[in-house]
Amino acid sequence: MSKPIILTGDRTTGPLHIGHYAGSLRNRLRFQSDHEQFLLLADTQALTDNAHDPAKVRRNVIEVALDYLAVGIDPARTTICLQSHLPALAELSMLYLNFVSVARLERNPTIKDEIRARGFGRDIPAGFLCYPAAQAADITAFKATVVPVGEDQAPLIEQTNEIVRRINAVAGSDVLPEAKAVIPKSGRLPGIDGEAKMSKSGGNAIPLSASPDEISAAVKAMFTDPMHLRVEDPGRVEGNTVFAYLDAFDDATEEVEELKARYRRGGLGDQAIKLRLNDILQDLIGPIRQRRAELARQPDYVLDVIRSGTERAMLRTEATKRDVIEALGLFLL
Amino acid sequence: MSKPIILTGDRTTGPLHIGHYAGSLRNRLRFQSDHEQFLLLADTQALTDNAHDPAKVRRNVIEVALDYLAVGIDPARTTICLQSHLPALAELSMLYLNFVSVARLERNPTIKDEIRARGFGRDIPAGFLCYPAAQAADITAFKATVVPVGEDQAPLIEQTNEIVRRINAVAGSDVLPEAKAVIPKSGRLPGIDGEAKMSKSGGNAIPLSASPDEISAAVKAMFTDPMHLRVEDPGRVEGNTVFAYLDAFDDATEEVEELKARYRRGGLGDQAIKLRLNDILQDLIGPIRQRRAELARQPDYVLDVIRSGTERAMLRTEATKRDVIEALGLFLL
Repeated sequence: MSKPIILTGDRTTGPLHIGHYAGSLRNRLRFQSDHEQFLLLADTQALTDNAHDPAKVRRNVIEVALDYLAVGIDPARTTICLQSHLPALAELSMLYLNFVSVARLERNPTIKDEIRARGFGRDIPAGFLCYPAAQAADITAFKATVVPVGEDQAPLIEQTNEIVRRINAVAGSDVLPEAKAVIPKSGRLPGIDGEAKMSKSGGNAIPLSASPDEISAAVKAMFTDPMHLRVEDPGRVEGNTVFAYLDAFDDATEEVEELKARYRRGGLGDQAIKLRLNDILQDLIGPIRQRRAELARQPDYVLDVIRSGTERAMLRTEATKRDVIEALGLFLL
Repeated sequence: MSKPIILTGDRTTGPLHIGHYAGSLRNRLRFQSDHEQFLLLADTQALTDNAHDPAKVRRNVIEVALDYLAVGIDPARTTICLQSHLPALAELSMLYLNFVSVARLERNPTIKDEIRARGFGRDIPAGFLCYPAAQAADITAFKATVVPVGEDQAPLIEQTNEIVRRINAVAGSDVLPEAKAVIPKSGRLPGIDGEAKMSKSGGNAIPLSASPDEISAAVKAMFTDPMHLRVEDPGRVEGNTVFAYLDAFDDATEEVEELKARYRRGGLGDQAIKLRLNDILQDLIGPIRQRRAELARQPDYVLDVIRSGTERAMLRTEATKRDVIEALGLFLL
């Protein structure tokens, strides 16, 4: 019985942070044992809203690859590959655009939200509107059936499956499998300022390369309960970033629950919980930072990982392209 | 001094007809001596409004290639290549979609007209809306500077050049040349029923493989002046399909002008001008039909032409893709 195929990846727009660690990287470490895992360095997709700054997209290919390797992604068990160097993804994207209407893309809730968030207004780049078809190409080119996504991205998988069903209908055979969205149980980690979205550009992220001082400073600045002024006051746990992080990273779940109870009652200061979180984050990020720095001194090794992963991915995606062309009965020289 | 590069081609949705001969094939025969000419068998573009019928698109790859060779396109001087087998075209298309807004595509007059003509309504396939970006990829991948198009297609070249200017601006160098639309002096040949558009699906075309009987029948059925009932009546030349065809195919221009004058005065019957046209079309199509039939018996030769042309085109388009990636400073493994 072959392992289920899983596809994930990251736009190469910046180094990854502990929000990525909590939301996806950690799960990917587990997936490598029981799934055939492909990780896409999504530089092509990154361009859909960064076409004005290709240098950023290029630079972060290596940064994201370093993050993958530093957290423990094992290139012998996970295929790390570069989206822009897999022509079948572009070819399938262009094909799939014929199987989805403009109106359907515009109705996609994820796209609607993201268009709003990016303030594109009337000037939505066509590539951005079309990226759900490109994502369908990514997923199906690997014949991935498992796709971990945030809750807000689930409509993209539904869109992928609509395209899959249309292709299969015209082909008269199930040449492509449908994919299942796997939404992680843990919600999204807030930024250190308590904002829902942690991002480098928002200045509220802790990168995986953070120094001990940067970690301490971030924890010190972390948003808690603004009404919790004195240690003896009752405090709020909900919306308290420190507790959100303890929930995400502290393995001693029962102790955390006790701390929450004490915090709610009053008598537990922000400093105490921040000290605890600081220790945990130092322990988590310390080894990652160290491996990352070592790897950064071996650029040839990192390039080799990307190159050999991309070659492996090439075989897979070219085979799928051929399958689709044959199933649809298109011309094959 | 190197020859200017010219790109043209045809969607592979049906065999070509004498409308294509008058409007483009004839010019291409001339271009092969003083231009570096690429002819695209546009199967990918054909799918943008034929995704439901891939078999038709496949079948007509060979039909169109046969038409090219039959009229005298010389594969030693013109590169005949297959769009779907040139991955750089899809890759550049996806890239260019980031350099054009959805609103701009929707404003394109050609796209607007074609959407109306096809009756897509709200269900425009995304691939159809995006095809100007794909066409920009085709043109620029060959670094073509000369693009013969019908008058109604000129806005597509303007769109291509807008994308070129944006790419060059982000790259900070003129990595891509702008293209010039060349609009043939002879207007579009009407269908035999007098309708503006000749098409196989409209049943008003004379295919390049037409038999002598089919040619005669088409000329007999040809639309003239419905008010010109008796030979001695004055007749109208404008909107008279037989004269439109004589203008397109009869080299004895002065004689044709005299015939027009006589027809206008009265005293020249439809039968006489139709006889003349029939002779001309039999002489034109006869040798084409014959060569076409011979070539159709050598499918391996035709495939070889497409294969070697596509290989040549591959080198060219991959080189351009690399140029663009380097100029934009994107990642290159």
